[in-house]
Amino acid sequence: MAHSERQWISTIKSLSLKGLKGLRKSTRIGIGDDCAVVSIAPSQELLVTTDLTLEDVHFRRNWHPAAIVGHRCLARGLSDIAAMGGTPISAFLSLATPRGSDKWICSFLGGLIRLARMHRVELAGGDLAQSHSVISADIVVLGLAPTRRALLRSGARPGDGIFVTGALGGAAATLLTLQKRKRIRIDGNDPHFYPSPRVAVGRVLLEKRIATSAIDVSDGLSTDLSHLCEESGVGAKLDASAIPISGTAHKIGNSLDLALHGGEDYELLFTASKRTRVPRIIAGVPITRIGEITRVSQKDRSAPMILMQEGRRRVLRAEGWEHFR
Amino acid sequence: MAHSERQWISTIKSLSLKGLKGLRKSTRIGIGDDCAVVSIAPSQELLVTTDLTLEDVHFRRNWHPAAIVGHRCLARGLSDIAAMGGTPISAFLSLATPRGSDKWICSFLGGLIRLARMHRVELAGGDLAQSHSVISADIVVLGLAPTRRALLRSGARPGDGIFVTGALGGAAATLLTLQKRKRIRIDGNDPHFYPSPRVAVGRVLLEKRIATSAIDVSDGLSTDLSHLCEESGVGAKLDASAIPISGTAHKIGNSLDLALHGGEDYELLFTASKRTRVPRIIAGVPITRIGEITRVSQKDRSAPMILMQEGRRRVLRAEGWEHFR
Repeated sequence: MAHSERQWISTIKSLSLKGLKGLRKSTRIGIGDDCAVVSIAPSQELLVTTDLTLEDVHFRRNWHPAAIVGHRCLARGLSDIAAMGGTPISAFLSLATPRGSDKWICSFLGGLIRLARMHRVELAGGDLAQSHSVISADIVVLGLAPTRRALLRSGARPGDGIFVTGALGGAAATLLTLQKRKRIRIDGNDPHFYPSPRVAVGRVLLEKRIATSAIDVSDGLSTDLSHLCEESGVGAKLDASAIPISGTAHKIGNSLDLALHGGEDYELLFTASKRTRVPRIIAGVPITRIGEITRVSQKDRSAPMILMQEGRRRVLRAEGWEHFR
Repeated sequence: MAHSERQWISTIKSLSLKGLKGLRKSTRIGIGDDCAVVSIAPSQELLVTTDLTLEDVHFRRNWHPAAIVGHRCLARGLSDIAAMGGTPISAFLSLATPRGSDKWICSFLGGLIRLARMHRVELAGGDLAQSHSVISADIVVLGLAPTRRALLRSGARPGDGIFVTGALGGAAATLLTLQKRKRIRIDGNDPHFYPSPRVAVGRVLLEKRIATSAIDVSDGLSTDLSHLCEESGVGAKLDASAIPISGTAHKIGNSLDLALHGGEDYELLFTASKRTRVPRIIAGVPITRIGEITRVSQKDRSAPMILMQEGRRRVLRAEGWEHFR
């Protein structure tokens, strides 16, 4: 029998609170009133991010089990908080599903709340509606960062090193395999199915004042680096041979392209001053230097990204995923 | 030619900031980074609300011009902030539209941002995606309230008076007319097309310590009153003859039912202690006493709402709008 909206709200409330005992709570009033009420300490600023997850755009029911859709939905928001060096505190979910989706919703919430718990995040509110067509989910994640310390896209300076966490291209490699209609055994380490938002790394980058700027690799290295360059008013020179490529991407070939332009790896891309010693591993995640921030000359203004490959220099264009294209 | 996501972001950024000059800004970093960064004063708490607006569920393109959909989308969020007595500060929009919706998006944003400006709210972020089917919009509104002072649903006590702002049933009356396929000349005062979130009233209720509890009438008086009673652990007795009925509802007959169960009026329903003098007009909006909060006896636990009509006493059931039913 179908759950009513009220029943869902009470189910979600109890699911969300389970396992969060002892958590120093920011959410004073959670699910069940007109708004959630959140306390913010005076030394902190609030971070806010929202991300849409649409059926047949961001996932397909026959490729992605509901629990994985839930995991990926929240991972997108957590990754944005990580990219600012923040600590996620609560999430809000607006979910529209067609009639008869009760079982799907339960598994979806299971996957989402499992990841929320790992990051000590409370599902503190949201909205439910019945859609006439596909499933759509919008996740809002709130986070905290010490006042004026959040890592921005705009802080990179010429001479800074460019670094990336983990390895790239793995999520795109799996997506390509799915598109070729090949069967895949779902692996808990596959970054396409189970992306690991780099929250702990981001926090260290902020707390230890390592990073001058940061962004998460959601649209692909080339595109996200172009955002960072644009906001900082700088260029970049990457060393192709230094880019850490995921094992999955190596297996299917074309691996450098996947690492440069494939999206959804949810690794962090950041810059650090020459004078800063950047650890090789932060919070258990390998950190790799892949290039250097450059000055934008008047001449290069339109193409400020360069890729060095086998001694040759070529312009790197933003060719990652872009909606509306 | 279709806007790219980047072009949309820059269009929205400039639209949103226009007319907000001189505003004491809470948003330190708005559109264009991984998260928005919001400053919260130490004496304040953050209010968070999210509301879905789906094509063919909450609006129809042939009934509702895009600018009106934008207005209604934001009004839902502002009304939730009003119901807590808060001051809205910023909004976040996640918008999924099918290819070729550029003109629609522009008008939608126009209507949304016009209402945002009236309330000095900044559109500070969000997400854009291309959907394969219908339009869906999720609005997040952030607000502030003095610490521990937000008006909750849970504060009503036996003996408190029950009050409502404005008039009820008007939005449902217009919806009924639309459903009968009658032509309607859209009127700027029609609560269905242009609901007025009662932000100024809510603020006075909080600041002057008038209300003991509050909720907005979005699902219909009977349903929203039942939420308030449930959260407060009380019952209610309404006087049918006291309920202020909208002129539009009077015209189409069945007006008491529309006022009791019709949704989307976005008026405020609140309670106040017997000892409190409640003004007849607050912030220009008429306030009407419609009943009294009662004690829940063990016997009445399942039906704590009573309607007095022409000397007769009948049980009032929550029959307003509920999704998933």
